Amino acid sequence: MNTPPTPLRQLAELIGGRVVGDPSLMITGIAPIREAGDGQITFLSNPRYVDELSATRASAVILAPRHEGAPAPAGLARVIMDDPYYGMCRVIRHFHDRPFQPTGVSPLASIGQSVTMGRDVSIHPFVVIGDRAVIGDRVTLQAGCFIGEEAVIGDESWLHPNVTVRERVRLGRRVIIHSGTVVGSDGFGYAFHGGEHQKIPQVGTVVIEDDVELGSNVSVDRATLGQTVIGRGTKVDNLVQIAHNVTIGERSIIVAQAGISGSTTLGKGVVLAGQVGVVGHVTIGDGVRVGAQSGVARNVPPGQDLSGSPAIAHRQWLAVQATLPQLPDIRRRLHRIEEELHALQQQINRPSRAAKPAGRRRTAPRRSKRA
Amino acid sequence: MNTPPTPLRQLAELIGGRVVGDPSLMITGIAPIREAGDGQITFLSNPRYVDELSATRASAVILAPRHEGAPAPAGLARVIMDDPYYGMCRVIRHFHDRPFQPTGVSPLASIGQSVTMGRDVSIHPFVVIGDRAVIGDRVTLQAGCFIGEEAVIGDESWLHPNVTVRERVRLGRRVIIHSGTVVGSDGFGYAFHGGEHQKIPQVGTVVIEDDVELGSNVSVDRATLGQTVIGRGTKVDNLVQIAHNVTIGERSIIVAQAGISGSTTLGKGVVLAGQVGVVGHVTIGDGVRVGAQSGVARNVPPGQDLSGSPAIAHRQWLAVQATLPQLPDIRRRLHRIEEELHALQQQINRPSRAAKPAGRRRTAPRRSKRA
Amino acid sequence: MNTPPTPLRQLAELIGGRVVGDPSLMITGIAPIREAGDGQITFLSNPRYVDELSATRASAVILAPRHEGAPAPAGLARVIMDDPYYGMCRVIRHFHDRPFQPTGVSPLASIGQSVTMGRDVSIHPFVVIGDRAVIGDRVTLQAGCFIGEEAVIGDESWLHPNVTVRERVRLGRRVIIHSGTVVGSDGFGYAFHGGEHQKIPQVGTVVIEDDVELGSNVSVDRATLGQTVIGRGTKVDNLVQIAHNVTIGERSIIVAQAGISGSTTLGKGVVLAGQVGVVGHVTIGDGVRVGAQSGVARNVPPGQDLSGSPAIAHRQWLAVQATLPQLPDIRRRLHRIEEELHALQQQINRPSRAAKPAGRRRTAPRRSKRA
Repeated sequence: MNTPPTPLRQLAELIGGRVVGDPSLMITGIAPIREAGDGQITFLSNPRYVDELSATRASAVILAPRHEGAPAPAGLARVIMDDPYYGMCRVIRHFHDRPFQPTGVSPLASIGQSVTMGRDVSIHPFVVIGDRAVIGDRVTLQAGCFIGEEAVIGDESWLHPNVTVRERVRLGRRVIIHSGTVVGSDGFGYAFHGGEHQKIPQVGTVVIEDDVELGSNVSVDRATLGQTVIGRGTKVDNLVQIAHNVTIGERSIIVAQAGISGSTTLGKGVVLAGQVGVVGHVTIGDGVRVGAQSGVARNVPPGQDLSGSPAIAHRQWLAVQATLPQLPDIRRRLHRIEEELHALQQQINRPSRAAKPAGRRRTAPRRSKRA
Repeated sequence: MNTPPTPLRQLAELIGGRVVGDPSLMITGIAPIREAGDGQITFLSNPRYVDELSATRASAVILAPRHEGAPAPAGLARVIMDDPYYGMCRVIRHFHDRPFQPTGVSPLASIGQSVTMGRDVSIHPFVVIGDRAVIGDRVTLQAGCFIGEEAVIGDESWLHPNVTVRERVRLGRRVIIHSGTVVGSDGFGYAFHGGEHQKIPQVGTVVIEDDVELGSNVSVDRATLGQTVIGRGTKVDNLVQIAHNVTIGERSIIVAQAGISGSTTLGKGVVLAGQVGVVGHVTIGDGVRVGAQSGVARNVPPGQDLSGSPAIAHRQWLAVQATLPQLPDIRRRLHRIEEELHALQQQINRPSRAAKPAGRRRTAPRRSKRA
Repeated sequence: MNTPPTPLRQLAELIGGRVVGDPSLMITGIAPIREAGDGQITFLSNPRYVDELSATRASAVILAPRHEGAPAPAGLARVIMDDPYYGMCRVIRHFHDRPFQPTGVSPLASIGQSVTMGRDVSIHPFVVIGDRAVIGDRVTLQAGCFIGEEAVIGDESWLHPNVTVRERVRLGRRVIIHSGTVVGSDGFGYAFHGGEHQKIPQVGTVVIEDDVELGSNVSVDRATLGQTVIGRGTKVDNLVQIAHNVTIGERSIIVAQAGISGSTTLGKGVVLAGQVGVVGHVTIGDGVRVGAQSGVARNVPPGQDLSGSPAIAHRQWLAVQATLPQLPDIRRRLHRIEEELHALQQQINRPSRAAKPAGRRRTAPRRSKRA
């Protein structure tokens, strides 16, 4: 929070942007378009907010070339760049990153036997580390974290307060886990035998690769045998369920409250939107994107966009959703057509004595109509 | 639990009701209609349970005027009032409220530097309070709670065991938070750049206003910049996801497992039923009510009732839902109509020699036929 | 992990199977079909994986009689039994079960007054046990668990790290609870009175019967009055919501992220698949099974299979789901039929002067057709 005011020119260089306005303007911080004030820089990324630019009280804005001419207060400096969202990201880091300062091992932590402790760690009060666990360099374990026996926490990983990492789980480097999250709870496996659900011991583990981030109150179950895997650079939002023996590829995005059932495999770059469910034992290809609240119940080839429950092609789902509210009207129209068609049949065949067979009745009006 | 037996007259006065029966009857407690026994009072609020009144073993019942004549055991005393649900609420308080008894700061808690500690607090074992946090008067922090640096906990707030409140989060007065809940975890924000999801530092905070209650295992993310806000008197059930930069108005009700995506604004008195999802960057007006499992993907004007995914007007959704099971039958009837219509066309135009190719049969001819 | 290599004959006896191959083969462990190596036994239960048998590097496989002849590497020993899934379960236990070794009460735990402590318990660091709680024999409470006042934990129960059990909750014997789970948080009950949501004190409790297992980050609310009950042998997956005054019968299965609303009763042997929601105040009969993401909004008689939201008979739902993608096509076909039918009506009635009333127009062609 102590980064000094910075000339606009320096921020523009940092993010690879072009200044339109006074490059010597001193910027004190970054804020959203509605909240930014004098001396602050803001950003315009989502076109939804372009109309708000004219009312901003910021001194500068980061925006894309296509928005360069958007109406704005006189004197608002601009930094033009292709990806203002990333520009915003870099400027936040500039103003908010603080140097890492390890605090050492708290005397209020409980450290097991034969723990391998890296250099420059921060082990906070009421942390428990089980026997033979391995803690990497510059790892931070905040208050109330539990690290099970023989678990491995990679270098520079950061566990927020009250995270549980069970025995033998392995985290890569720079893994971030938010509070309340549990990695390595038992998979949900029972064999129904003798009239009871017999617990299948869940003796596998979980592997979280480098640069993964898990939100708060996430559950990642350990494998029955083998391992549950979350691939490098994948980001998982809050309250997500990842069942036993699931494999998620690299750089995937799993949004809040989604759930992935046991033994399912997701490819690289998969996106599951919020509250999506995926059944067990299926394979979702690279780059598949699934819309919010959808349910995936089958294998999905790479690159598809799906929505709905059960999920179908996203475009097809859009057409279905647009039609669905008309369904009661469709039923009424169908009924009227049946009546009119039957009347027409009667009219044409009036001289005829050919009676409809009983099986045809269903589509005809209940009461025969007099012509 | 130590409230002494109380005359029915006194309970009736407490809740503004009228006694039918013996006002000097001594009441020892309150219990549900099926479980209440001799000396206890019960209540009838949900009409679903009116038939159970005749079998109750309670000595008295709180009910509405419209249920005054419902069949009941002989001798059952009645307290008649307009809102028996609220009456029940008040009687439970009468029998179960205990005077607040602060326990002070446990020697097993870890208190940071420059913490401002209010009067008559209860700080339980293994609580961690970060530097410069502010704890109001009569605050209770149960075991395992974490309060981050510079966080503010308002007077008379009560945090149940194992709650995490991250740095700089501000709670108002009389806020209740249940176990496992996390307030202020990082928002789910990444800029995809250079082939990787680059983490956007989430440097904003969360503001929880007075009289808010959060259930267990709730996740409330801090804002990217600015703040996530939950308005005064709003109640949030268990396992709810509230994303970064969300604003929820006063006195709203968010039922279990609902999720609200980033930068969305809810008005006052909004009700989201269980497992509802709301997309990001939309505005939901005051008094909007959304049915269970619905998905809201657009702005909603005040006062609307919505259901479905994507959500439509609740009445329209009821009609759609009633018709949906008939869809296979609709398809069959449509096919039969096409066949009969085509037959009729053939019959009328019999002199014509134009034979339809087989493949056209299903959907009937597109081009009008020559007579 | 230290179980010595075991002859195949002994494993076959353990699970009641018949050996085809060398019964003296020494088996060192069990692994999934793709991962098993030399000396290990694997299993084939889900027919989905039968094709993978021919590529396994295991030395032996447990499989059902119907798969005895499935293509497999030469020399692969087989153990034939009716229920290979249960066989796998037993063999995992053989290789992985470790004798129970109580660790006693950690000096870093906080034990209240008048606690009844069983024999051979394991109370880990930073556990808090409230006054007058009762802890059974051979109970394990891992780090960070909270046991409220007067709670009862039955013999041989095992609570993983960071579990919260609130005051007066009663757990039976051999109950397993995973990390982050909360039992006994306040039910979500308010009486809207005087323009505010007035909190109804939740003074009931929760009863968890013998042999129940609760996954991680589960929320089980205490009853308003009376008790919330989870019946004997029922298994609950991660992130499940169980509201106040819910009763779940014996041996039910509640899959991840399902939610059960207040005062609802589930029978015995009920299965709720993932992300299912059930409304409040309904009764679900014994043996009912509800498909993933479904919403149950009414009483359900015993034995039914339901799917959909709102849920209908599963078979009917399958037919609806198969038809749903055709809905836009159905609408188009309906429109075409209306046009053709009207044309036919015009053609037949050409001499007639009877004009359709305006209200019928909707089903008629948009452009008037010249006869």
